[in-house]
Amino acid sequence: MDYLLAAVDLGSNSFRLTIARVVQHNGHAQIYAIDRLKDAVQLAAGLTPHKTLDEAAVERAIAVLKRYGERLEGFNPSRVRAVATNTFRVAKDTGPILARAEAALGFPIEVISGQEEARLIYSGVSSELPPSGNHRLVIDIGGGSTEVILGKGHQPIHLASLPMGCVSYTKQFFPDGRITAQRMGKARLAARRELESISDTYRHLGWEQAYGSSGTAKGLLAMLAEGGMSSRGITVEGMEALQKRLVSDGRVIMEHLPGIKPARAGVLSGGLAIMMAAFEELKIDFMLPGEGALRAGVLYDLLGRRSEHDKREETVQLMLQRYDIDAQQAQRVHTIAMQLFRSMKLEGEDVEELERTLSWAARLHEVGLSITSANYHLHSAYILGHADMPGFSNDDQKLLAWFASGHQGKVVRASSPRPEPSRAQWLTLLCLRLAVLLCRRREQPATLPIQLHHDGHSLSILADAQWLDTHALSEYSLRAEAKEWRKAEFRVELVEAPIKPVAIRESS
Amino acid sequence: MDYLLAAVDLGSNSFRLTIARVVQHNGHAQIYAIDRLKDAVQLAAGLTPHKTLDEAAVERAIAVLKRYGERLEGFNPSRVRAVATNTFRVAKDTGPILARAEAALGFPIEVISGQEEARLIYSGVSSELPPSGNHRLVIDIGGGSTEVILGKGHQPIHLASLPMGCVSYTKQFFPDGRITAQRMGKARLAARRELESISDTYRHLGWEQAYGSSGTAKGLLAMLAEGGMSSRGITVEGMEALQKRLVSDGRVIMEHLPGIKPARAGVLSGGLAIMMAAFEELKIDFMLPGEGALRAGVLYDLLGRRSEHDKREETVQLMLQRYDIDAQQAQRVHTIAMQLFRSMKLEGEDVEELERTLSWAARLHEVGLSITSANYHLHSAYILGHADMPGFSNDDQKLLAWFASGHQGKVVRASSPRPEPSRAQWLTLLCLRLAVLLCRRREQPATLPIQLHHDGHSLSILADAQWLDTHALSEYSLRAEAKEWRKAEFRVELVEAPIKPVAIRESS
Repeated sequence: MDYLLAAVDLGSNSFRLTIARVVQHNGHAQIYAIDRLKDAVQLAAGLTPHKTLDEAAVERAIAVLKRYGERLEGFNPSRVRAVATNTFRVAKDTGPILARAEAALGFPIEVISGQEEARLIYSGVSSELPPSGNHRLVIDIGGGSTEVILGKGHQPIHLASLPMGCVSYTKQFFPDGRITAQRMGKARLAARRELESISDTYRHLGWEQAYGSSGTAKGLLAMLAEGGMSSRGITVEGMEALQKRLVSDGRVIMEHLPGIKPARAGVLSGGLAIMMAAFEELKIDFMLPGEGALRAGVLYDLLGRRSEHDKREETVQLMLQRYDIDAQQAQRVHTIAMQLFRSMKLEGEDVEELERTLSWAARLHEVGLSITSANYHLHSAYILGHADMPGFSNDDQKLLAWFASGHQGKVVRASSPRPEPSRAQWLTLLCLRLAVLLCRRREQPATLPIQLHHDGHSLSILADAQWLDTHALSEYSLRAEAKEWRKAEFRVELVEAPIKPVAIRESS
Repeated sequence: MDYLLAAVDLGSNSFRLTIARVVQHNGHAQIYAIDRLKDAVQLAAGLTPHKTLDEAAVERAIAVLKRYGERLEGFNPSRVRAVATNTFRVAKDTGPILARAEAALGFPIEVISGQEEARLIYSGVSSELPPSGNHRLVIDIGGGSTEVILGKGHQPIHLASLPMGCVSYTKQFFPDGRITAQRMGKARLAARRELESISDTYRHLGWEQAYGSSGTAKGLLAMLAEGGMSSRGITVEGMEALQKRLVSDGRVIMEHLPGIKPARAGVLSGGLAIMMAAFEELKIDFMLPGEGALRAGVLYDLLGRRSEHDKREETVQLMLQRYDIDAQQAQRVHTIAMQLFRSMKLEGEDVEELERTLSWAARLHEVGLSITSANYHLHSAYILGHADMPGFSNDDQKLLAWFASGHQGKVVRASSPRPEPSRAQWLTLLCLRLAVLLCRRREQPATLPIQLHHDGHSLSILADAQWLDTHALSEYSLRAEAKEWRKAEFRVELVEAPIKPVAIRESS
């Protein structure tokens, strides 16, 4: 059956909304955009020197998100994904702003890392191109960051997210809007310096065709075409001619430039400097415009999550290998944690998501052993909070890091992510801790000797008195565990009850 | 030529000093202890509930270190190594205490990690045993931590440092000295819980012979022998008999126990509980006393540093592989950093050590790329600060982490290790940063185009005007670099001078 998906992109220059229809063709799902909105919010221009966002920019953002929220009314949350990029990555104290933004939009907003942005951009651009086994270079000059990706077919090979964008560079190098040859030269050098560290790696692999996927690329192409400087694509000669024209009288009335909207014209100088630097450093001679970009990538990821191709599952599998995690122990803890979780029969909107998160956390909680065994739970949290994890948002990673840091040792309320975890999240953490406790011996336990019972206020770990009598160490550990929770003011008790140990069932 | 080496062990229960003569036999160096001092400082007993050290314990420690300092007067610093273990690892605010301790001893004191302690203990014990290709288990019950190592010949295979010791357990479970069956049972369960996570791994591999290397093992063996409970080694039956005797009247006058010194008797109960738990969890049936332990391991490490077998070099090589570091780039940066460092002709006691540290930092500065490229310098610092790095002390690792975190981006005085780095350390960091800057393209530069010139107050980066003219990007980067340093109030300038680019010479 056909259905709709929606992607919201809170970019540093523009916000965008794409609504697409998913159509099944011979068992394959295809995405067709049916509605597109775009608004030049210029969020990055609102970044103060102290890296906070000024109120005017926030107001612009909220107003746009309210409109998008209206358009998305009635959408199932699992069919909408909103992602925020560089400005939200670098701005400080965005917690309250994000809360306001989510209230306006009516859906959660995920801040994604530069690497994740680059991955989604490549996925979006390549999905709009005909299938090909050739190498492709994609450059996406955003408002605050520039993503440079080299890939083959639909698969990215090198991903880079560089801290330079058309809004931030225009603000830094052309603060009063005046374009001079010297300023342009300095901006180009600064951009080349950012590109310098990746240029050799990229050029060594090479590419068949380069694509520019952002508004900057489209704006430049429109100007080159209108001005008769180049027709089909972006070239060095075209941009040189354009720069000459822009600096010829020291000050160009940007609004009068042909072929470009005023909002784009205002950040053209920074975008041009970055694009010229990219051509120079990477030795590009010809660039085509690329469609789709971030929104399309987000839509294809959403589509995957609804099928067997959840990118996040793939990432967890890769991390198990890459960090040399003891897969057997991961599986043991996973099985028991899931079984305990299901036995609680939690209800609520986020239970499905929580179950997935527990499944990832159970498999990855020992990743920190790759650093050292002492306090490895904290190293696990560091890695899960910072590593490249394709498909996961920054908040996903923060939550995984919280599970990892809390999976053993003290139960600490203070070291929790924003805002205080929900009761369901705490109960989920308890499942993980109990699973780790029961698997401490790193052997498959024969049976699951405990059951969980909770009401609104307290949780009981039920165990058979006779079993406890014959398992002194387990009893000691379970009592110590319940005590840990009580220290943090949770009502958790070990209760003797006539329950039989049950078989351990592999989770689906 | 023969010479003397000295090792000081600031343990949680005892401090020890060993002075040894190094004798050359057919090209092989052998170590013979010629003087041994041991003092029951019981530092761990001075840990307050807030994890600070009480003054009485500090005074005991300083008094002992003063005596050791007298004994070591005139020793070359490169021939003395003092290491501090668990109590210094877990105690808070030890900075001022360590400074006093170093002043009393007259030599630097290194706090080492549990993993490093375990490695050195195994090295020490195995070096005192006849050569063998068999598996050996070594258990060292210290005052605050217990190290359990399984190795083959001189090579450790599994290393563990568990947070339980004879002083801390006696304090926790037998606070008033009274020994009851119930208390002993609880202490044994707590110890088993710590051992539970390693027992299967260790038992799976198995061992030919188990050794107990600490005072606890020697004390137990002496008591068992004197009491006629076991003669040659420690057995379960012997310890059961001993425990029975200790708890028989609810309170034993420890000082009247046969075969054991009063200081050891005071922490016997905790030590016995841990040893019985180890026998139970690991299924040990017979244990021999092991000689040497930490001091011997430290001495053999010192010996290696004076020859071609510096453990730290081996560790750096292993990390290059394990974290998949771009070895070519590491080598490029290394070569140039060392060449710049030597060109400064620094003078002073620590120049040799600084040069070695730069060499390690230059090769490992990109280790954080294994986590992600964004802010990888901070991830490098995290890994270098926390990873298992055999041969390195915690302070060594902190310094490496400082080099890594400062190798690009802002020059930040605030994020430096205790105390503020020396001028020579800052200059060394500059060498690393310039090397990274010149190798940003990840190609071997043809020549070294800059020279460094410093006087007491300022540093000049000298470069040829003509070269700068033809290398706009390098000039831009070098000027930006000098500006970064000036922002942090260092006097660093890029100065045009008629110098010729020089050949890049592979460092030794």
